[in-house]
Amino acid sequence: MSVAFSSVRRVEFADTDMAGLIHFTTFYRMMESVEHEFLRSLGTSVVQRNEAGHMVGWPRLATECEFHAPAYFEDELEVTVRVASVGRSSLLLGYEFHRGELRIAHGRMKTVCCRVHESDGLSSVDIPAELRSRLDELVEPE
Amino acid sequence: MSVAFSSVRRVEFADTDMAGLIHFTTFYRMMESVEHEFLRSLGTSVVQRNEAGHMVGWPRLATECEFHAPAYFEDELEVTVRVASVGRSSLLLGYEFHRGELRIAHGRMKTVCCRVHESDGLSSVDIPAELRSRLDELVEPE
Amino acid sequence: MSVAFSSVRRVEFADTDMAGLIHFTTFYRMMESVEHEFLRSLGTSVVQRNEAGHMVGWPRLATECEFHAPAYFEDELEVTVRVASVGRSSLLLGYEFHRGELRIAHGRMKTVCCRVHESDGLSSVDIPAELRSRLDELVEPE
Amino acid sequence: MSVAFSSVRRVEFADTDMAGLIHFTTFYRMMESVEHEFLRSLGTSVVQRNEAGHMVGWPRLATECEFHAPAYFEDELEVTVRVASVGRSSLLLGYEFHRGELRIAHGRMKTVCCRVHESDGLSSVDIPAELRSRLDELVEPE
Repeated sequence: MSVAFSSVRRVEFADTDMAGLIHFTTFYRMMESVEHEFLRSLGTSVVQRNEAGHMVGWPRLATECEFHAPAYFEDELEVTVRVASVGRSSLLLGYEFHRGELRIAHGRMKTVCCRVHESDGLSSVDIPAELRSRLDELVEPE
Repeated sequence: MSVAFSSVRRVEFADTDMAGLIHFTTFYRMMESVEHEFLRSLGTSVVQRNEAGHMVGWPRLATECEFHAPAYFEDELEVTVRVASVGRSSLLLGYEFHRGELRIAHGRMKTVCCRVHESDGLSSVDIPAELRSRLDELVEPE
Repeated sequence: MSVAFSSVRRVEFADTDMAGLIHFTTFYRMMESVEHEFLRSLGTSVVQRNEAGHMVGWPRLATECEFHAPAYFEDELEVTVRVASVGRSSLLLGYEFHRGELRIAHGRMKTVCCRVHESDGLSSVDIPAELRSRLDELVEPE
Repeated sequence: MSVAFSSVRRVEFADTDMAGLIHFTTFYRMMESVEHEFLRSLGTSVVQRNEAGHMVGWPRLATECEFHAPAYFEDELEVTVRVASVGRSSLLLGYEFHRGELRIAHGRMKTVCCRVHESDGLSSVDIPAELRSRLDELVEPE
């Protein structure tokens, strides 16, 4: 009920490894792919230009994932997104992966809204007001 | 002083993204690459056959990484490995990434020694005795 | 008119590089992903077990791709598949990538139906009769 | 004798797939990685800024690879580079992969020296004179 968004991803052949399972890094790429689809559903994109023409992106502060059951080639995984918390510039999203009823994995990614400097480095900026208000509505109750 | 192993990895062009930085999934691939080099240094490999010819591998239970500073194309990152704990079949390793003196990221990966069944699934097995004794010597003091 | 199959793939953030474009290896992963979806549409999978329980797969003999225009993050690319030729055990498929009317890239992949030996190596086998007859119907006229 | 450069790459676990072999896209990433090491050995980098501060890169025009024998996890592959031809702005390099005496694969990549425009698109530029003269010396005789 507090799921903010969900989407399905299929395990590709290149996502498998010689143990015959999905390689664990695939879960992180899937989290990111669904995160970006979620942002598109809110009318924005993970990469934008501000009024001054500077790139604004969302680099990662921290990511984690726990793996409960193996997933295999051609599995269709349902990825659900929850909004755990919204800060001035940071965003914490939670993710779950299911194949049918079986929970395969769950994870979290903390990102921070940043201006990307062309020469070098990043500096955090406020989450744009409109996006922030959309995210605030979606924060799951504790 | 409790570093068990260290090795250098270079950031490749394919590891970067349109923000001009290393993509965060690269840290996980680097952790895995150095983990496997560490296991080779202990005289074993992450993928082996037991006496019965079954594949024995080390799937992930949980992985996490925190990112402190961006890394860029062609950076050489020193990756250090610490042995946090060794269980009957599980192994928890800690990792740090430095560019020169600057700590770029740190993470942990918990893996479990498993027999990989051909048809389906995994079952945990004891870490081979010789490897276990080598790892026990390397566990960092609390 | 001789297009055998088509499907859409979106350019993900992890597919981009620091030049701001799709990384060229992404086209190969997309070709493979659509190839496998094409095989599923024909009622089979790229990885199967034969009656004896051995894995039968389709390793690559040769792959190539030419790039005509850059593609960007979040682009939706239509990937079309043509069946160029079907041999006893080999299959040559052609691919085109379009964003709207603009042709972004085109490529070819030659694969060979093989039994994958557990210990070591590959040996080519006949394409299963039913799949072969489906593919023969789809070969584009010269 | 006309080999311009060579370097060794190890097959990582994440490079394998469920058939137990190296995934074919790995050869392209290895070609690129060795290409960039080759450019560093010539005193340059694949990504540079020109005097006006614009990014100059080397997008791909065409890439191809043929696969002769499977490669496996932890294999060390020697990758050799030949300079096939140097144009005003284009560069054609040939690559071979060997494991010991056995040739595993060979490929080619045609790239073009380009200014990357921030807003959109690419425009070819002359290869910098110094790099061009170094490459000309290395072109293999027909």
